Amino acid sequence: MKMSLDCIPCFVRQAMDAVKMSASSDEVRQNLMHNVLQWLADVDLNQTPPAASQIIHRRLRELLSTDDPYRSSKSMHNEMAAALVPAIRKYIELSSDPFLMAVRYAITGNIIDLGAKNKIGYGDIYEDLQNASIQPIFGDIEAFRKAVLNAETILYLTDNAGEIFFDGLLIEQMKNARVTLAVRGAPVINDATRSDAQAAGLDQIAAIIDNGSDAPGTILDDCSSEFRRIFNEADVVIAKGQGNFESLSDEPREIFFLYKTKCPVISRHSGFCMGTYVLAHRSHGQSMLEARS
Amino acid sequence: MKMSLDCIPCFVRQAMDAVKMSASSDEVRQNLMHNVLQWLADVDLNQTPPAASQIIHRRLRELLSTDDPYRSSKSMHNEMAAALVPAIRKYIELSSDPFLMAVRYAITGNIIDLGAKNKIGYGDIYEDLQNASIQPIFGDIEAFRKAVLNAETILYLTDNAGEIFFDGLLIEQMKNARVTLAVRGAPVINDATRSDAQAAGLDQIAAIIDNGSDAPGTILDDCSSEFRRIFNEADVVIAKGQGNFESLSDEPREIFFLYKTKCPVISRHSGFCMGTYVLAHRSHGQSMLEARS
Repeated sequence: MKMSLDCIPCFVRQAMDAVKMSASSDEVRQNLMHNVLQWLADVDLNQTPPAASQIIHRRLRELLSTDDPYRSSKSMHNEMAAALVPAIRKYIELSSDPFLMAVRYAITGNIIDLGAKNKIGYGDIYEDLQNASIQPIFGDIEAFRKAVLNAETILYLTDNAGEIFFDGLLIEQMKNARVTLAVRGAPVINDATRSDAQAAGLDQIAAIIDNGSDAPGTILDDCSSEFRRIFNEADVVIAKGQGNFESLSDEPREIFFLYKTKCPVISRHSGFCMGTYVLAHRSHGQSMLEARS
Repeated sequence: MKMSLDCIPCFVRQAMDAVKMSASSDEVRQNLMHNVLQWLADVDLNQTPPAASQIIHRRLRELLSTDDPYRSSKSMHNEMAAALVPAIRKYIELSSDPFLMAVRYAITGNIIDLGAKNKIGYGDIYEDLQNASIQPIFGDIEAFRKAVLNAETILYLTDNAGEIFFDGLLIEQMKNARVTLAVRGAPVINDATRSDAQAAGLDQIAAIIDNGSDAPGTILDDCSSEFRRIFNEADVVIAKGQGNFESLSDEPREIFFLYKTKCPVISRHSGFCMGTYVLAHRSHGQSMLEARS
């Protein structure tokens, strides 16, 4: 999906977050924001939001003294999730439909998104966890269950640090398939990289690959050929989060998207109101519009 | 108070609101936002937020086909407030302390601020009204009561359309003084102008003047000499809303500020957490910091 003018205030806020976390003085911060606003003044609205965001954050990292401004946020979210996940795992195992429950909690984890909001703390996560077990999922859960059950190979595209622990709970339900878990190829916003997958112990239950790209989504042309091969060959592709939806919603192959709608642009594009737990499915060659009708 | 880098995402959002309400096509909208981002890239952080906002919105109005992009929003807020105010007036009159209660409702009306948020509907106002009558007010209400009771002349600086109806309820309590009510000299964001004061019937209980300026606050150097004379001579000056606080908090004369904290920049500067009902008071020559200690 193409970006919207409405993405611009959000990009400014995202960039400001990165600048505030990393720059050493008010003067440096002001200079960096001067650059960001100049870049955004000339942004190409025909690209996807992750493509625009990729350029802004890559340029910012070049000007900042760190190549990973969000490292401490990501570690904090990993620690928060690590503390929560054992009890949730037990709850999932004891439920009457562990697969469905694991889908719900995987989507709940999608709240940990510093692209959509500038701070995510315990309060935000607890609030979502309160109602997680009864959240309706908008999408064909039976088609998803069947696809997962019948798959020999599954590619699971992760989204954010912290969230990735919740993804682990869903991957634990995919006992019949060989699961490959993809992370970003380099740090961008709070998106998960290899170290986050390892922190979540996901190397114990899946093969970890990185996609070779520093976009906060999955821009196939920017990914490694090895990643693209696995993407094309997997029986089932699961794409987690808004960034992966934004960058892959026009791809022709069958994909299951799991995300929580957290911004008005996605809400308008997908047709789901803010806060919805979405399981979007597009079959081979079908458009997302057809998939919803 | 000086603006903060944190004001920039908010300015971008404000400008986007104005552009979306007025521009005729995506191309025009994109061109306008290109200009806004260029202006903001070079914004002077040593000015107050209303001074920066004044320039952006003035330039925008020059490029837009309307000199009042927020006119329909302002009329809607006036209508919403007009429907609410009669019942609130009765409630104030029946309360044990009508003056205190009127202060609470005047501050409640400050929620109608399209500078701080992009949409204010019935839901937002009702939510605030639910708890209005028990809101603690952070400030010396007795000093304010005494100043108002002893004043012969009061200058009341209004903030926004819609909100101005709630200001009317407080002005009705100022029976011993001649009240002059000041509005902006020209449309900017959803700030009240003369027509809004008239829509609220405030010309029946106060003398209406405009301040001669199109800033969303009160920048004295930009106001008319007639306004400045009244500002200097009034026994009591009451300044409503964040914009008036931002632009007048460093002025030497005694001012009572009434506002609800609605943004983190104001929250940090004033020391009050978000959502607080503030009655800030600075005596002649006293700094705001001394006033709080």
